[in-house]
Formats: sequence, structure tokens, C-alpha cells
Amino acid sequence: MRIAVLGTGSAGRVLAARFAELGHEVTIGTRDAAATSARTEPDRMGNPAFPQWQAAHPQVALADFAVAAAGAELVVNATGGAESIPALTLAGADNLAGKVVMDIANPLDHSLGFPPSLLVKDTDSLGEQIQRAFPGVRVVKTLNTMNASLMADPGQLAEGGHTTFVAGNDGAAKQTVTALLESLGHRDVIDLGDITAARGTEMILPLWLRLMGTLGTPVFNIKVVR
Amino acid sequence: MRIAVLGTGSAGRVLAARFAELGHEVTIGTRDAAATSARTEPDRMGNPAFPQWQAAHPQVALADFAVAAAGAELVVNATGGAESIPALTLAGADNLAGKVVMDIANPLDHSLGFPPSLLVKDTDSLGEQIQRAFPGVRVVKTLNTMNASLMADPGQLAEGGHTTFVAGNDGAAKQTVTALLESLGHRDVIDLGDITAARGTEMILPLWLRLMGTLGTPVFNIKVVR
Repeated sequence: MRIAVLGTGSAGRVLAARFAELGHEVTIGTRDAAATSARTEPDRMGNPAFPQWQAAHPQVALADFAVAAAGAELVVNATGGAESIPALTLAGADNLAGKVVMDIANPLDHSLGFPPSLLVKDTDSLGEQIQRAFPGVRVVKTLNTMNASLMADPGQLAEGGHTTFVAGNDGAAKQTVTALLESLGHRDVIDLGDITAARGTEMILPLWLRLMGTLGTPVFNIKVVR
Repeated sequence: MRIAVLGTGSAGRVLAARFAELGHEVTIGTRDAAATSARTEPDRMGNPAFPQWQAAHPQVALADFAVAAAGAELVVNATGGAESIPALTLAGADNLAGKVVMDIANPLDHSLGFPPSLLVKDTDSLGEQIQRAFPGVRVVKTLNTMNASLMADPGQLAEGGHTTFVAGNDGAAKQTVTALLESLGHRDVIDLGDITAARGTEMILPLWLRLMGTLGTPVFNIKVVR
């Protein structure tokens, strides 16, 4: 499948690398590909400069958001939550129309320090905002409840014996995403229903962040025991 | 131990019955014990009228909030989230002073129908509100992330192989609560740190409510896989 991963951060990188490893044709989308290719310093999260990463992953292409989206069958929103709507706007509603958009972002507000609070919550969610802003897109909220390395390789923890959620208004889009997740090793995918369920999955971030501090690692996940 | 359980709803009832079964001296606290004892109709959640329940649990006493709190070593807040501060105010700061208050309530706002939204979230929590309103009390937030029957008998699901959180500012109070939880069968108790962690545990309610609908049962819980 031709997959565009929007966002050059750690989540975008590990997912892009893993999709390429599985044989997909992957392009990472960024605001300004020329600028991204010219970087020499680590990004604000401390990830190595993108060209350094790309040299180790030559099978992953880099393009402006719109070019990446136009060429893709499926688009992953791996941008920061505060930048997701602007990034998708640059990708272009026409380039996204009819496509599945896997939204893995969280609407974190880092402006007040750690822990971040949520830019939207409870009666709305980032997933819903994206679906409303791009009604022609088939948004599926998923993967936002775990660390990037677990998104791409869930089998590293308890042989994948933990839970992954999907939520969205389009059943076929959720089936496509679920199959893709299963190909990554996600063994327990729960369909929570329509996109309003993104409220619930985004709102576990405060618990997730606290657990990361308590456990001293981001490599954990929740399992729904039933 | 002498335990006061504030609240006559299903959570209060099942916890009171279980504590009594384990040999504790249990009093359920209510706003007006005489009125509660005179009820003949099911409550608004459909639970049988309190006298009917109490006839089957004669070892559990009933008293006004203040009387119940005054006689207790440990107090459980099992009132609805919107009524918790008023109930504790009736219980009386002097009667609660220095005592452990296990806060198991969620600040649900049912005024807009189902699903309820949260009265407080993200940058504050009910647990913190209670701690601020009653600075002399040792608040421990716990059990609010699961159904009442699992609170009292976690072993009914996966032999107790799922997670229970505690959060609070007083380490000794959390130890007391953890020991009590373990006596109920809670096998995986995670201490999340200070009372601000209540934000995280209260904010999983939207996911919990959605899962209840998806799974068709309230008898499930999350396990932190690490």
C-alpha cells in the first residue's frame, strides 16, 4: 500500500520505518521538505536531525505534505496535536478526499510545562475536529494511547497482549486500519464505535503520562481485561 | 477497623457488605438516616429501597453522615461526585480530621444525558477539590476506575489480574488503603503519587463508559501491562 506519514517526529519515523519494512511504499510528509532535508541539528524533542535518520532508512521518501498526501492510499496523521489541522490543511482536502486518515495524535498543550494539559476534551476531541474539518476524509482514531515504539512493534511487550483502540464513523476504514494494525502485531484491537470515542482515548493521556513517571518507562500499555 | 461508607448507592452497598463480611465494623452514612430508613421505592438508579437491602445485611449500621464519620477510623466517600463536597461538609471537618478518606467518586455531570461529561478535569479533579476543602483529611483516590462489584470483589475477573490505582499526598494513608484493597483481593495496586494523579484516573471515565457499551458489561477493568 502507498502510505503517507505526516510528521517527522519519533512516531512518524518509527511507523514509517516499520511500514517500509513490511513492504509498503512510504513517504513522510513535512511542511517544507527542502528545509527538513537541510536540517543538521536534533529536533526539539531531541531526535536526530531528519537527514541523519533518513540516511539509515533510504527506502522512506520525504515530500511536502501535499505531495505525500496526493500520492498515498492511506494517510497517517503523526503530527503534534496542536499542528494537526494546519498540517492536514496544507496536505489539502482534495488530496485527502475519500482516503483513510489514521489519526494517532494527541491534543497536548505544552505551553504550561509538564504535565501538558489537553487542548480539547470531554465534549469534543481532536479526532472529531479533524473529521469535521475534513468531512470527505475517513478518520480513524487509533494508536494514540501508547508510546511510538509500541505503536510500531507491540510484540516487544507481553507478546502484544495489550489493547489497541480504533474509533471512526466509517466501518470499512476501521477494517482497513485494523488489518494494518494486526500486520504490525496488534493482537487485541477494540472497535469503540464512532469518532466521538476519540474523547475517551485522548483523555487517558493524563493517566498515561503519570504512569510513565511512576513506572520509569514509556514502554507499557493498558489491556482491557474482560 | 471501624469504617464509615458515605453513600447508599450501589458502590456504597457492595463495599459496606464486603467490609462487614471481612469482619470490619461498618456504618453507612446518609444525609437523613430516618428518611433513608423510611424509603419504600427503588432509588433513582433502580437499586432496591435501602431498608430492603439492609434487612439482608443486618450487620451494617445506618447513620447520619456526621454520626457515621465521627465513629469511624476510615471513611469511604461513595457519594455521587456532584454531592461529595456537600456530603463531606455534613459529615463535618472535625469528625473527619486526621482520618483517611478513600475517595471512590467520579465527578460525573448527568445533566446533559448520556454519556455524562465531567464536572472537573485536566487541570483539577474531585480528589484535589476534596483535599483542598478538607486539608486536615488524608484523601486517597482509588477504585473510581472500575465498576462497584469489581471494587468489592476483584477476584471475580481474571482472578484479580487487573490494576487498581491509589493517589494521595499521605504515604501512610496510601499504605493503609493499599492493605485494605489487598484484603478485598486487589492484586496489582499502583501508587501514582500525589492527589493530582486523580485527574488521570477520573479522566478515564469517558473511555470506561464507552467500553461498557462496546463490551456490553460493566465487569471489565484495565491492566497496566509493563
